[in-house]
Amino acid sequence: MTSLKSTSVLHDVRTAENSAAYLLPKLQSMKESNPRLTLLDVGAGSGTISVSFAKLVPDGHVTGVDVNPNILPRARAAAEGAGVKNIDFHQGSVYKLPFDDETFDITFCHQVLIHIGTPWDALREMLRVTKRGGIVAAREGDYETECVWPELPELSKFHKFMAGLMSAGGGDPKAGRQLLSWALKAGAERSQITLSYSTSSYSTPSEKKVCSQGLCVPLRGGSLSEKALKFGLGTEDDFEAMAKAWEEWAERDDASLAMLQGEILVQK
Amino acid sequence: MTSLKSTSVLHDVRTAENSAAYLLPKLQSMKESNPRLTLLDVGAGSGTISVSFAKLVPDGHVTGVDVNPNILPRARAAAEGAGVKNIDFHQGSVYKLPFDDETFDITFCHQVLIHIGTPWDALREMLRVTKRGGIVAAREGDYETECVWPELPELSKFHKFMAGLMSAGGGDPKAGRQLLSWALKAGAERSQITLSYSTSSYSTPSEKKVCSQGLCVPLRGGSLSEKALKFGLGTEDDFEAMAKAWEEWAERDDASLAMLQGEILVQK
Repeated sequence: MTSLKSTSVLHDVRTAENSAAYLLPKLQSMKESNPRLTLLDVGAGSGTISVSFAKLVPDGHVTGVDVNPNILPRARAAAEGAGVKNIDFHQGSVYKLPFDDETFDITFCHQVLIHIGTPWDALREMLRVTKRGGIVAAREGDYETECVWPELPELSKFHKFMAGLMSAGGGDPKAGRQLLSWALKAGAERSQITLSYSTSSYSTPSEKKVCSQGLCVPLRGGSLSEKALKFGLGTEDDFEAMAKAWEEWAERDDASLAMLQGEILVQK
Repeated sequence: MTSLKSTSVLHDVRTAENSAAYLLPKLQSMKESNPRLTLLDVGAGSGTISVSFAKLVPDGHVTGVDVNPNILPRARAAAEGAGVKNIDFHQGSVYKLPFDDETFDITFCHQVLIHIGTPWDALREMLRVTKRGGIVAAREGDYETECVWPELPELSKFHKFMAGLMSAGGGDPKAGRQLLSWALKAGAERSQITLSYSTSSYSTPSEKKVCSQGLCVPLRGGSLSEKALKFGLGTEDDFEAMAKAWEEWAERDDASLAMLQGEILVQK
């Protein structure tokens, strides 16, 4: 069970608009012919993306699932805080979604497949619960492309540390570039799949502050340090040195951080 | 003097729309208050971006410069072929632009700074020839973030080969992430600079064909192989093996190529 002391600042700023822009034109065109769209957000986490999708389909319904039952109250609180009622959250694994075949018009996930061992099985399961004529969508970072400036030595260590943490947890830091191959392995035809790439980046003072805080909290006794200690990937002193480097980075005028994001739409 | 057997297929598909989208909103707003905008395209190469900018400012004027005089006839032919008259091309170095101070409303370059030794000097020179209230714009790849799938061994070799070629030629494969620091070093204040990141990618059959051809031609006796032989970075057999790998890549259903692009707008 993962900790709730996660990279929450970074997760809580996520919305459909900033995290799923690749899906929105398709969603809008589907909504025009069917305003009662049903969406499934797999690995919904703190629920901010699910809630913003629910606002986009006021006559439809969004279901969020997460493997960690302890995060569900936070997701429900996010919905309540936003006054959104066409939404519910359940515990469930991406490998065995608790829904019948062909239940949802759109099934999507965000930064989920990068963390798991057999992402093609997850995509196959997402295709199963999606209606014919519906869409499976996924956006995953390609952590190997993370590029940071200035090249502070502790930030280079952090890059290797995070890649090691993903691999130790059974994930694959090169997720973004493999989405297409995973969708093919899940049984989709190439002609059903649209692949695109976008970026996530932080360079303005406010963006750098969010990024730095979002990394420092989990490094200082939060989810990253907990997992890394478990996998023997460093000491608390190591993590503190990396957190300090992120604070220094955030103060630098010449600083930025960027990463490629892979995105697929699979037409079922 | 560089060869004309360059990566021409890849260069010739470049337009303002696909290569300078980050600059277009600013250009449009400047054009509203002054339809007679003057633009300078530094390192214009085969001129396709310059020509598409000239179409965007029909009452303005575009000047293209390139250090290689042998490419100027091709750029002029591109303008003539497009029926564009508000444009001219000259020989000139980015380090010593043949123009008075404060001549242009917009001075931009595309994939130029990544290839040169002191890009901050180039940006300082671009700022010099730009009017007060004008814009200096640059978009440069961050070659270290290039991500390719599938990971054919010859494509991994190609990645190292290209990074080596850029470094041997005096450039820096990590250009994209350093644009902000280079603009600061050129004398701009942080508050004058807007940094963004975008991607270039190839994944559809037609995109992969353009990409593969655009790399195979210069590998097979073109500019890449010429330079690489000069710098002792491989043999013709090595280059042929890489070209064959790009052909195989283009045929694969699961193949894609993507790279981060750094972009800056400097308000003078």
